[in-house]
Order: sequence, then structure tokens, then C-alpha cells
Amino acid sequence: MRVLGVDPGLTRCGVGVVDGGAGKPPRLVHVDVVRTPADHDIAVRLLQVAEEVEAMMDTYKPDVVAVERVFSQQNVRTVMGTAQAAGVVALAAARRHIPVAWHTPSEVKAAVSGNGSADKAQVTTMVTRLLRLDTRPKPADAADALALAICHLWRSPMQAKLAALTPTAPRRRTAPPAPAVRVAR
Amino acid sequence: MRVLGVDPGLTRCGVGVVDGGAGKPPRLVHVDVVRTPADHDIAVRLLQVAEEVEAMMDTYKPDVVAVERVFSQQNVRTVMGTAQAAGVVALAAARRHIPVAWHTPSEVKAAVSGNGSADKAQVTTMVTRLLRLDTRPKPADAADALALAICHLWRSPMQAKLAALTPTAPRRRTAPPAPAVRVAR
Repeated sequence: MRVLGVDPGLTRCGVGVVDGGAGKPPRLVHVDVVRTPADHDIAVRLLQVAEEVEAMMDTYKPDVVAVERVFSQQNVRTVMGTAQAAGVVALAAARRHIPVAWHTPSEVKAAVSGNGSADKAQVTTMVTRLLRLDTRPKPADAADALALAICHLWRSPMQAKLAALTPTAPRRRTAPPAPAVRVAR
Repeated sequence: MRVLGVDPGLTRCGVGVVDGGAGKPPRLVHVDVVRTPADHDIAVRLLQVAEEVEAMMDTYKPDVVAVERVFSQQNVRTVMGTAQAAGVVALAAARRHIPVAWHTPSEVKAAVSGNGSADKAQVTTMVTRLLRLDTRPKPADAADALALAICHLWRSPMQAKLAALTPTAPRRRTAPPAPAVRVAR
């Protein structure tokens, strides 16, 4: 399974592609950070993020796109930009019929480090070790995107087993293959 | 000038198209509400919103898209969905080289009713009156989208005059005509 992990953002949007599967160690395929200038118009910045992430989806053809589930924390302006960037990434995946999975920051930290409140340095250290890289991925957004992809590789078989055990499956979190459902207005 | 106003949302996304200009009363061209089912996947819902709003942009060819500037208020989940929907609408406009303007809810209320804290019923009443409609637009999201378009028609000449008077223009809020600026990573 190939996962494209996205740490969404307008100033820096981390994108990491990781291969993995049952019994196989995760393997780095690609990592990059899309940057857009803070003084540009928001719509233009969203277009830049969309175009670069779409190009990566088309090049690396992931089976799943894993995106950080954004919460409303600190700075309102930053959070809104982050949510908008996450939206255009999810849209790009839906257009390609690639399922989108959402993981919270603490789920990602817990998955790679065993500690849901690990700091950025610990996450980077664990990602470097798990992918057996010679150098630490930089900036932190790149490491976070890789951590998201690794988190999905590990959580998704567990989530699938849980869903199979639950008689009425909970709210779907990944896109069905044919998403063009239109609703009568 | 033709303005497409958008009250962004995943459950209900109001879209209103209004024509207007100096000395002319605003005229209703089109109003609609895009709805997506709450139990569908977020990425799929964003795709539905994007496809319907894009179809309206292509049909009505607005000069500007005016979007409600989302703030982090009440319900975190709702706000995030709203921000994501606003993101895909802004992206759709940027892809078509249509400038995007953002107005806050209180700017919109003040523009149509003279009162920045007007309630939904007052906004609907004023929109009905200003566009000389026989029936009140429903639901409130439809009226809000029309109010956004009217707000932009009235605020933009004032904003243009202010920008011309200011020696160093403040942060651009509308997209430049050629947005495909790529930044070295």
C-alpha cells in the first residue's frame, strides 16, 4: 500500500509518500514541502498548494491520502488557512477517486512514537529511524507528513478489523470509489 | 458588475448571483443552495460543493466571487467544514482567474441593513427589499449568499477608492489575473 501523507498549511504544506504493508517496514518514496508566500492572495495560495499536491498524486499514484485532522487551536487565521488547504487536498483526492483518511495530531504522534504528546523533535527522530534515513527530514512539516503516512499504514488494518467487528459501521472516513452523488436541491 | 456570493458550508452552501453597478439597483440573476448529506465522507461532500459551484461559475461567469470570511466560533467541526468549503470555492475561482473577495458576517449585515449585528430575519427582509423580490429567499443561506453579493457591489468601489488613496496598498484581498505563481521549494 502506498500512502501520501499531508500536513496541510498555506505557508508550508508537508507532503510525504511512504510504501508499506503487512510485515514490511515502511519505505520512503518521496518527501516535499509546498510553500506559498504569506503576502499573496489566499485563493492564489490555495491554487498553488492544489497544483503541487495534484502533481504529486499524479506522479506517485497513492492508494490512500492521509490528511491531518485540523482542530481549532491557537491562531484563528492560521487554523482557517490550514483547514482551507486540507479542503483543497481532500478535493484533489476525491476527484481522483483516492480515499481520504483523517488522523489527529495525537493519533499520529502516538502511532510513530508511542506518545500522543510527543514533541516535533521526537516525531522527527522516530520518522528518521522508522524509515532508516541517513538525515533527519526538514522542516518539521516534512517529518509530520511522513509520520501521517506511517500512522495510516499502521492504523488502517486495525481500523478495518474494528469496522468488520462492528455490526453497524460508524461514520465513513474514506471516500467510496464513485463519489459523484448529486443531491436534489 | 456581476458578483457570485457564497455562504460556504458542507450541509448547506448558499450561492447567489447579483448584477449591479454605479447608480443601478442590484438585480437578482440566480440563487441556489448546494446541499450535501451529513453522513457522507468529507472529501466527497467537498467534491459535490466544488462541482455545483463550478457549474454556476461557468454558467453565470461572475466578475468577482465574494465569500464569507469564516471565523472560528461555536462548533469546531462545523467551522472546519465551513473553512474547507470556502477553500474549494476560492480554488475554483482562482482556477478560472476570477478574483475572490472576503467579507466578514458583520460587514455583510452592516452593508445590507445598516446594522452589523442584524439577525437572519432582518438580513432576509433587506435582501428581499433591495432586490425587489416577490418572495423571501429561503433558506437563510440563500439570503446570506445574496447579501454577500450585494455587500461586495457596495463595498468594492469604496475599497478601490481607499486603496488608491493609500500610498502603500494593504494586503491584497483579490486575486491578480494570472495566479500561476510557482515558488521554488
